[in-house]
Amino acid sequence: MARVVVDVMLKPEILDPQGQAVANALPRIGVDDVSSVRIGRRVEIEFADDADPQDQLDRAREIADKLLANPVIEDFTIRLAETGGDREDALT
Amino acid sequence: MARVVVDVMLKPEILDPQGQAVANALPRIGVDDVSSVRIGRRVEIEFADDADPQDQLDRAREIADKLLANPVIEDFTIRLAETGGDREDALT
Amino acid sequence: MARVVVDVMLKPEILDPQGQAVANALPRIGVDDVSSVRIGRRVEIEFADDADPQDQLDRAREIADKLLANPVIEDFTIRLAETGGDREDALT
Amino acid sequence: MARVVVDVMLKPEILDPQGQAVANALPRIGVDDVSSVRIGRRVEIEFADDADPQDQLDRAREIADKLLANPVIEDFTIRLAETGGDREDALT
Repeated sequence: MARVVVDVMLKPEILDPQGQAVANALPRIGVDDVSSVRIGRRVEIEFADDADPQDQLDRAREIADKLLANPVIEDFTIRLAETGGDREDALT
Repeated sequence: MARVVVDVMLKPEILDPQGQAVANALPRIGVDDVSSVRIGRRVEIEFADDADPQDQLDRAREIADKLLANPVIEDFTIRLAETGGDREDALT
Repeated sequence: MARVVVDVMLKPEILDPQGQAVANALPRIGVDDVSSVRIGRRVEIEFADDADPQDQLDRAREIADKLLANPVIEDFTIRLAETGGDREDALT
Repeated sequence: MARVVVDVMLKPEILDPQGQAVANALPRIGVDDVSSVRIGRRVEIEFADDADPQDQLDRAREIADKLLANPVIEDFTIRLAETGGDREDALT
């Protein structure tokens, strides 16, 4: 069973107040060398069947387009994550 | 400049209603073979200096512990993302 | 047309790292007398028809139970918001 | 002790995919008369002292401006919530 991961982040030019709040809080915990924090969503989609990986990526893209991301303000990245482990192949 | 990525997900045994809502909406867009959708947060932390990668990971872990995740209900994963590209080395 | 508002907050005993991050960032913008910040979700549901208000509240409760909140870690409040204005009647 | 509530919602003209996902999932739980679901953030700020309510609202507005909302894509509303109860006075 494969898992597809969709990462949704605000576009770089869009201000991210929640990330900014974390960045501003860092000096209080002794961290002074962070230049930027951005907070987005990570969506893990498990497919029930043994469909072709490319087919799963295609459907994940459709899901992201329609239900996960707002293309005006957000970018997303889709990749296949092998369930056994840690290697992830990215595609944008 | 390196970027550290922190992925924060609800623990597997914790119900995720937002993911469930997406999963329930899929048949309406013609997708019938998804068994699970889980929605978490992806946090991208950019460090300003040329610190040692291991040092950046250590500080990212401290940030995640204190400001990004609730260890009672969430798990997080930290990894270094090379800014040039798409390879990410995961460590838990 | 009436709007039902569902407020979903982490239970008081559950740590809220995102709220904590905002609280920790406040001294940097000169605010020193905040004791707590908690961040939840506000969901606005518009009903299409002229259904009975109590009926809308009942259905909103069902939506919240199934798709908006995790009862193990979150509480929710439902109330009817008059579309014209600013008065909201709360019920828990 | 008073609590200030800041509601942050995407501007009406900005697509809300998470709300859309919930709306699309409703027919599966038997709800067919919802025309729109919008999901935003509700932030509860507790002030530690007995400051003047207007002063608390002013500071909450500053917090919202700097750390809670992105004015390009989001609107926010601030109101004072009496801790004893359920009445909330809204101001925009």
